[in-house]
Amino acid sequence: MPQSLAQLCGTLESYGMAPTLDGDGARTIDGVATLEDAGEREITFLSNPKYERQLDTTRAGAVVLGPDVAPPRHMDLIRVSDPYAAITALIVALHGYRRHAAPARDAAPQIDPSARIGENASLCAGATVAANVVIGRNAVLYPGCYVGPRCRIGDDALLYPNVVVYDDTILGNRVTIHAGSVIGEDGLGYAPINGKWVKIPQIGHVEIGDDVEIGAGCAIDRATLGKTVISSGTKFSNLIAIGHGTHVGEHCLFVAQAGLAGSVRVGQHVTMAGQAGVVGHVSIGDHATIGAKAGVTNNVPAGATYLGQPAAPINDTKRRLAALARLPEMRKRVKTLEARVAELEARLAAAQSTP
Amino acid sequence: MPQSLAQLCGTLESYGMAPTLDGDGARTIDGVATLEDAGEREITFLSNPKYERQLDTTRAGAVVLGPDVAPPRHMDLIRVSDPYAAITALIVALHGYRRHAAPARDAAPQIDPSARIGENASLCAGATVAANVVIGRNAVLYPGCYVGPRCRIGDDALLYPNVVVYDDTILGNRVTIHAGSVIGEDGLGYAPINGKWVKIPQIGHVEIGDDVEIGAGCAIDRATLGKTVISSGTKFSNLIAIGHGTHVGEHCLFVAQAGLAGSVRVGQHVTMAGQAGVVGHVSIGDHATIGAKAGVTNNVPAGATYLGQPAAPINDTKRRLAALARLPEMRKRVKTLEARVAELEARLAAAQSTP
Amino acid sequence: MPQSLAQLCGTLESYGMAPTLDGDGARTIDGVATLEDAGEREITFLSNPKYERQLDTTRAGAVVLGPDVAPPRHMDLIRVSDPYAAITALIVALHGYRRHAAPARDAAPQIDPSARIGENASLCAGATVAANVVIGRNAVLYPGCYVGPRCRIGDDALLYPNVVVYDDTILGNRVTIHAGSVIGEDGLGYAPINGKWVKIPQIGHVEIGDDVEIGAGCAIDRATLGKTVISSGTKFSNLIAIGHGTHVGEHCLFVAQAGLAGSVRVGQHVTMAGQAGVVGHVSIGDHATIGAKAGVTNNVPAGATYLGQPAAPINDTKRRLAALARLPEMRKRVKTLEARVAELEARLAAAQSTP
Repeated sequence: MPQSLAQLCGTLESYGMAPTLDGDGARTIDGVATLEDAGEREITFLSNPKYERQLDTTRAGAVVLGPDVAPPRHMDLIRVSDPYAAITALIVALHGYRRHAAPARDAAPQIDPSARIGENASLCAGATVAANVVIGRNAVLYPGCYVGPRCRIGDDALLYPNVVVYDDTILGNRVTIHAGSVIGEDGLGYAPINGKWVKIPQIGHVEIGDDVEIGAGCAIDRATLGKTVISSGTKFSNLIAIGHGTHVGEHCLFVAQAGLAGSVRVGQHVTMAGQAGVVGHVSIGDHATIGAKAGVTNNVPAGATYLGQPAAPINDTKRRLAALARLPEMRKRVKTLEARVAELEARLAAAQSTP
Repeated sequence: MPQSLAQLCGTLESYGMAPTLDGDGARTIDGVATLEDAGEREITFLSNPKYERQLDTTRAGAVVLGPDVAPPRHMDLIRVSDPYAAITALIVALHGYRRHAAPARDAAPQIDPSARIGENASLCAGATVAANVVIGRNAVLYPGCYVGPRCRIGDDALLYPNVVVYDDTILGNRVTIHAGSVIGEDGLGYAPINGKWVKIPQIGHVEIGDDVEIGAGCAIDRATLGKTVISSGTKFSNLIAIGHGTHVGEHCLFVAQAGLAGSVRVGQHVTMAGQAGVVGHVSIGDHATIGAKAGVTNNVPAGATYLGQPAAPINDTKRRLAALARLPEMRKRVKTLEARVAELEARLAAAQSTP
Repeated sequence: MPQSLAQLCGTLESYGMAPTLDGDGARTIDGVATLEDAGEREITFLSNPKYERQLDTTRAGAVVLGPDVAPPRHMDLIRVSDPYAAITALIVALHGYRRHAAPARDAAPQIDPSARIGENASLCAGATVAANVVIGRNAVLYPGCYVGPRCRIGDDALLYPNVVVYDDTILGNRVTIHAGSVIGEDGLGYAPINGKWVKIPQIGHVEIGDDVEIGAGCAIDRATLGKTVISSGTKFSNLIAIGHGTHVGEHCLFVAQAGLAGSVRVGQHVTMAGQAGVVGHVSIGDHATIGAKAGVTNNVPAGATYLGQPAAPINDTKRRLAALARLPEMRKRVKTLEARVAELEARLAAAQSTP
C-alpha cells in the first residue's frame, strides 16, 4: 500500500529511530528497491559504502542515508543512524511479509486422528501429520511436509514445502523452516562391534526455540540421548548440518553450508560464517565469530574472532598467512645468507691460515 | 536402437566431427559402455590417458580414440579429434535422454484454477501449482514438486521429484532441476535491531535462464530486492548454495557443494570446483577457474585460475604450498646458520683479541 | 520395557561382553540417559574421559564403566571393556529401534500396476512407485518418497519422507535412507561442444549394498556409464555428495558434508571426516582416515591418515602447521641473522684492510 514519506518517517519513529526528513514529505512511495533498480515511486538506501557512487545515478524517488554520507544531487532523503535497520522497517511497512494462502478445502492432508490441530492452522493437501502430534494456532504446513509422531509445533510456525520433522521434535512459536530441511533425523551413531557398525537407537530428540528461522536443505540430527537444541532467535541459512547433541545458543547467525559435529556447545550471539566447520565436543563462547571456511578444533573464548584451518585467533592467522605469502622470498634470503656465511667462513679460514 | 558403425560415423559427421572408421562398418552396436564393462555389441572410448592400459583388456566391439593413441590389437575403431565429445554424441544416438512417463490420469495434482498450464505439460499427482502460475508447453513436474504463486516455468522445463520453487521465480525454457532442490527461498536477511535479528521481507525473486541444469539438493536464495540470476546454459551439480542477489553468468559449470554468498557477480564460462566458496560482494571475471575448496575473498580477474584459502593466483598458491612443504627443512637450515654465524662471531672475536 | 540390572548383564553376556556387576542386580532400569540427564531409574555410561567429573554429580541409578575408571561414590555399576559398545546393546534392549506405523488404509500411494510389492511392505499415502519397480518384503516408504522406473528396493529397506530414488537404482536389504536424500540423479556430465555444455545422457545407475545407512539431504550421482557403488555396511551422515561412477567400499563411515568427485575408488573401513573432499579419479586405500576439511588430491595408501589441503600424511601436515605457526618468529630470526652477517662482513673487511 503506497505511503507518503512523512508516513514512512512516522513508521521509523515508532521504532525509536529518530529519522530526519530532507525533502517533500508528501511524496508517494510504492515500495523499496536497490539503488540500481529503484524508480521514481520507490525508496532506496545506502548501507554499504561500496555502492556510494550509485547515489549519483539512481532514479529512486527517495533515499535513506546514514549520518556521514554527502547528500546526492536533488533527491528527497531520510537520515537515520542505521540505514539498514531503517530500510528493514520500511520494507515491512510497504511490502510486509509473505502471505500464505489457505489450502484448498477439497483436498485433504493426511492427519492422524490422534493429532491436535490448533485454531486457524493451515495444513495443505500433501502434508502429513502423524499420531499424537500437537500443532499450534495459525501454524502453516505447506504440501509435502511430514511431522512425525509426538512432535509439538508451536503457534505461528511456518513449514515450507517438503520439510520433514522426525518424531518427538519440539518447535517453538513463530519458528520458520524453509523447504526441504530435515529436523531430527538420526545422527551418525554406531558402535564398532566385531568389525561392523552397529546402529545405536537414537532415542533423543531436537528442541527448537521461539523465533528461530532455518534455511532450505538443512539437516539437524536428533540427540542420541537427551536433546539437540537450537535456541530462540537464532537464524540459519541453507545446507547447514548440525550433529547430534549439539546445543546452539540464542540469537546466533549461521551462514550457508556451515557444519557442526556432535556435542558442541555454542553460546549466544555467535556468528558462524559460510562453510565453517566445528569438531565435536568443543565450546564456542558468547559473541564469538567464526570466519568463512574456518575449521574449529578447540574451544573458542567468548568474544573472539577465529579464522583459518585449524582455526586460530584472527590476528595469529593473518600473521601466518602474511608470513606464508612472503615465504618464497624468505627462502631466497636464507639461501643468500648461506652463501654469505660460506664466503665469510672461507675468508676467515684463509685469513687465519695466512701467516 | 542398434546401429551400425557406419551409421554412427554418419552421426558424428552430422556434428561436424570428421571421424575416420578403421574396421567393419557393418558391425552392429547396441550401446555405449566403459572400457571395463563393454561387451561385443557395445562401443567404448578412451579420453583420459590414465585408462589407456584398459585398451588391451576391453572386450568392447569397437572403440572411439583420439588421434595420438596407438591402435589396440585387432578392434574396430573410430578416430576423432575429441573422443569425449564424440562419445557424447553416440550416447545420445544410441540411448537418448531419459523419457518421462505421463502421469496417471486417475490421480490429480493440486492445481490452482488461476494457473495457466501449457499444452502437453505433465503434472504428476502429488505436484502442487499455486495461484497465477504459468507453466510452459511440454513441461514436466514430478510428484512432490511445489511451484509457488506467480512463478513462470518455461517450455520443456523438467522438475524432478520434490523440487520447490518459491513465489515469483522465473525459469527459462529447457531448464532441468534435479530432485529436492529449492529455488527462491528467503536468504539470510535480518537487521540487528535492539539485540535481536529482525527479518527483512525478501521481496526480490530468482530468474533462471534457458538451458540451465541444477543438480539435486541445491538452494538458491531469492534476492532481498531485485533478483538473483542464473544465466542461460549454466550447469550446477549438487548441494550448491547461492546467496541472495548473486548473479551467475552464462555457460558456467559449478561442481558439488560450491557456495556463493550474496551480491556476488560471476561472469560467463566460469568454472567453480567442488566445495569452493566465495564471500559476498566480489566479482569473478569471465572464463575464470576457481579451484576445489578455494576460498575467494577478493575480485578475480577474467581468465585467471585461483586456488587456496584465501584464494590466490594458482602459481602463487603453488609456490606458497611448495615453500610450506619445505618449511621444516628450512627451519633446520636457519638453525644451522645461527650456529655457523655464532661460530664465526666467536672466531672473529678471538682473532681480533689476539694480539 | 523395564529390566533389572541382572537382566541387562545377561544381555551384555549374549553379545560376548563379559560384564561384571557391582551392586544390586534387582534394581529396575527403565531407560538410558546421559550422565547429566539420567535419573534414578535410568542407566548411564562414561566413554569419553572428558566427562569423568560428571560421575560425581549424576543422579543415575546405575552406570556402565570401562576397566580403568575409579568407581564413583555409592552407585550400582557394570564394568565392561568397551562401555560404548555396551551402552549400544543396552539402548537396543531397553528402547529398541524406531517403530514404523502402518500407513492409513484409506489413502492410497501412487503405485504403477507393473510394480511388484513385497509381502508386508508399507507404502504410505503420498509415496510414488513407478513402472517395473520391485519393492522387497517389509520395506517402508514414508510419504513423499519417489521410486523411479525399474528400481529394485531390498527387503526391510526403510525410506524416510521425501527420499527420491531415480530410475534403475538398486538398494540392498536393510538399507535405510533418511529424509530428503536423492539417489541416482544425473551427475555433472557435459561435453563442451561449440562453446556450450552438451548434456551426456547419464545411462549408468547406482547400486547400494546391504545394511547401508544414508543420512538426510545426501546426493549420490548415477554413473554416466556403468555404476556408482556404495558397498554393504557403509554409513553416511548428512549432506554428502558422491560423484558419478565413484565406488565406496564396505563398512566405511562418512561424516556430514563430505564430498567425493566422480570415478573415485574408496576401499573398506575408510573414515571420511566432516567437510572432507576428494578430487576425481583417485584411490583411497582400506582403513585410511581422511581428516575433517582435508582436500585429497592424490591416491591415499591403505591405513594412512591424511590431513590438510592439499591432504598429506598427518605427521607431515602437523609438522607444516607447527612450522607455519612459528613462521613469524622465524622471520625475525632470519632478519637478525642478516644483521649479524652484515656486521661480520664489515668487521672482516675492516680487519683485512687494516695493515
